[in-house]
Amino acid sequence: MREVTVPLQDRSYPILIGAGILPQIGERARQVGIRGAVAVVQDAAVSEWYGPQVRQSLEAAGYRVVVVEVPSGEASKCLDQLGRFYDAFAAARLDRTSAVVALGGGVVGDLAGFAAASYLRGIDFIQVPTTLLAQVDSSVGGKTGIDLSAGKNLVGAFHQPRLVLADLATLETLPRREFVAGMAEVIKYGIIVDPELFAYLEQNSEAVLSHQPDVLAHLVARSCEIKAEVVGRDERESGLRAILNYGHTVGHAVEAVAGYGRYLHGEAIALGAVAAGELSRRLAGLTAADAARIEALLARYGLPVRLDEELPEAQLFQAMRLDKKVREGELRFVLARRIGEVYTETVPEPEVKPALAAIAPARNQSD
Amino acid sequence: MREVTVPLQDRSYPILIGAGILPQIGERARQVGIRGAVAVVQDAAVSEWYGPQVRQSLEAAGYRVVVVEVPSGEASKCLDQLGRFYDAFAAARLDRTSAVVALGGGVVGDLAGFAAASYLRGIDFIQVPTTLLAQVDSSVGGKTGIDLSAGKNLVGAFHQPRLVLADLATLETLPRREFVAGMAEVIKYGIIVDPELFAYLEQNSEAVLSHQPDVLAHLVARSCEIKAEVVGRDERESGLRAILNYGHTVGHAVEAVAGYGRYLHGEAIALGAVAAGELSRRLAGLTAADAARIEALLARYGLPVRLDEELPEAQLFQAMRLDKKVREGELRFVLARRIGEVYTETVPEPEVKPALAAIAPARNQSD
Repeated sequence: MREVTVPLQDRSYPILIGAGILPQIGERARQVGIRGAVAVVQDAAVSEWYGPQVRQSLEAAGYRVVVVEVPSGEASKCLDQLGRFYDAFAAARLDRTSAVVALGGGVVGDLAGFAAASYLRGIDFIQVPTTLLAQVDSSVGGKTGIDLSAGKNLVGAFHQPRLVLADLATLETLPRREFVAGMAEVIKYGIIVDPELFAYLEQNSEAVLSHQPDVLAHLVARSCEIKAEVVGRDERESGLRAILNYGHTVGHAVEAVAGYGRYLHGEAIALGAVAAGELSRRLAGLTAADAARIEALLARYGLPVRLDEELPEAQLFQAMRLDKKVREGELRFVLARRIGEVYTETVPEPEVKPALAAIAPARNQSD
Repeated sequence: MREVTVPLQDRSYPILIGAGILPQIGERARQVGIRGAVAVVQDAAVSEWYGPQVRQSLEAAGYRVVVVEVPSGEASKCLDQLGRFYDAFAAARLDRTSAVVALGGGVVGDLAGFAAASYLRGIDFIQVPTTLLAQVDSSVGGKTGIDLSAGKNLVGAFHQPRLVLADLATLETLPRREFVAGMAEVIKYGIIVDPELFAYLEQNSEAVLSHQPDVLAHLVARSCEIKAEVVGRDERESGLRAILNYGHTVGHAVEAVAGYGRYLHGEAIALGAVAAGELSRRLAGLTAADAARIEALLARYGLPVRLDEELPEAQLFQAMRLDKKVREGELRFVLARRIGEVYTETVPEPEVKPALAAIAPARNQSD
C-alpha cells in the first residue's frame, strides 16, 4: 500500500492507495479519531459491490452506520439531494463527533463533502473514491460543492477530508468510458508540472488501459502527490492552486452548455485541454509540436479532442463568464509555456475564439 | 460613533455602532476592500425604510448593486430561499470580488451569511443588522445557517463578515415585541460574564425601554464587546464560545416544538434562561435569590418566563437531542455558579425535567 500525505498542518491527512484495502475503512476511521455515528453516502452504481464491505468494516469497528444512497450522475449534485442528506443526517441524529463517508466518484464526494462541511457547521468526512477521476483528483484537496442550473460547482465549501482511502480494485468495475475520462486529469498533471509523467503516459498507454496493477498504482500515487503538494501550498486557491484548472475554463463551459451528463467531466476537460493548448500556442509560446503532443496523448487514451456537435459560442462565453475563476469580468486561463510549466493569465474574449474553433466538430453535421 | 473590533488576526473586523450611520455603508465597504458587485439581501419588513439608503450609498461609492428581498420571519431560513439567492447571485454574475450585504435581522443575517459562505465556496459579506437581537448577537461572530424541519440552525458555516454596521436609528422602526426579545440576549451577557451589566439592566429598565440614546449605545456596544472577546478567543466553538449558549439548549427546543415563529428567538431564550437558572440552582450552586433575580429581570423587560401553553416533554427532549451542542448523546447545558460566572456541563435527562417544570404554563389552560 502506498501512502501520500496532504500537508496542511493540524489538518494534514493521509491518502491510502492500494488494491483490496476497502475492508480497512473501519480501523482507519478509528485511527484518525472518528468517534460518533457514521453516515455512508454511496453512489447507487457501486452500492451493490462495495456498500456491504464498507458497512461491515465500519460496524466491526464499533460504529453505528446509516446509509444514504444517491442516484448516479452529475444531476445529483443539486440542492434537492443535499436537502435529502440533511434530513437523513438529522433523522440519524448525527452529531459533531460523527462523520460522513463518501463512497463513489466525484459526484458523491463533492456532494457528501459539502453536506459534511455544512451539517452542524461542519463535521468530519472520509473519501472512499471508486472512480479514477475521484482517486486522482476530486477526492483530494477539500473542494466540495454542488451545481446550479447556471453553472457547475457554483456553491460549495473548502472542507478537507480526514482520510482518503483509494482502493484500486474498485477500478475493475468502472465502465471503460469513465476510466478513460479519469485519464484526462492524470494527463493534466503531466501538462502542468511533470514532463516525466507526461512521457510515461505516452510510453505506457497499453499498460494503463489494460489496468496493469503496478502501472495504475504509480499513476494514482503520482497524481495524488502532485495534487497534495499544490493543495498544501495553496489550500484555498488564492494563487498556485489555480494551475490545477488547466483545461477547466472551457471544459466547465462545455459541460454546462452541452447539459450536465452529455460529456463526462474528464471528457469535457480533455476538450478544454485542447482549447487551452491552442491558446497556449498563440499566447504562451507553447510549440505547435507540444500542442500536438497534448492532443495526441488525449486521443491515444480515447478522449474526445473535438466536440461531437456544435455548441453556440455565445452560450459558451456566457458560461465562462460565470466560472468561479472569473474576477471582475475577465476570463482567466491556465496557459502552458511548455509541457510541465504553466501559469494563469487573463485573456480577452476575442482571443478565446480561435481556441474554441480548435475543438469545433470535425465536420459540419447538419443535414 | 463607537467601534468594537472582533480580534481574529487577518480576519479581524470592525463593528460600527451609532445612530444614523447607514448612509456610510458604501464608503465603509470600500475601506474594507470590497471591489466587485454587491448583492443586498434585505428583509421585506425593512426594505421600504432602509433599502433605498443602502442602495444609494453603495451606488454612490461606485458599486453595481443587485437587491434580493426575503419574506420576514424564521420560516425564510430554509433551503428554498437559499436556492433563490444562489440563482439571483448567478444571474447577477457575482464573482469572488463581490460581497453580500445582509440588511435586516438575524434571519436575514444567518441566511445571507450562509449564502455568502457557500456561493463560489465563499465570498465576502457585510452585516447591517436592523434589530436589537442582530445588533447585539447574531451579526457578530460568523455563525451563519439555515433551519431544517428537524431543528434550528442544523446547517450552516462559520463565515466571518468583513464589517458590521449597526445603525441604532433602525431600532426606532422595530416593533416593541422584537426589541424586547433582543433584550433577552443582552441580559444573557450579564448572566454569563458581566454582573455590572446585569445590575445596570436592573437599574435602567425604563431608560432602555424608552430607547434613551446613550443607554442604547452603551448596551449595544457592551454586548458587542463581550461577544467579540469570546469569539476572538474561540471562533469555532471548541470551548469557551459555548457559554454564549446560556438558555439556548431549552430555548432552541421550545422554538422547534412550538413551531418556528410561535415564539421569537429572544422569547424562547428567555424561557431557556429561566430553565437554565433552575438547573443552575439545583446543580451549580446558584442561589435561589439569584435565580429569582434572573427571572425577575427577564419579566421586567416584558419577556416570557412561563410557556403560554404546554409543550409535550417528550418532544422537547427529542429536540434537545438534536441540538448541535449534543455530543455522543449527552445533553449539554451552560450553568451559572453565580450571575457573571458560567460553565458548560453535560446533564442527564432526568435532571432536566425539573428545569422544564420551572417554565410550565402558570395554570392549566385546557378547557
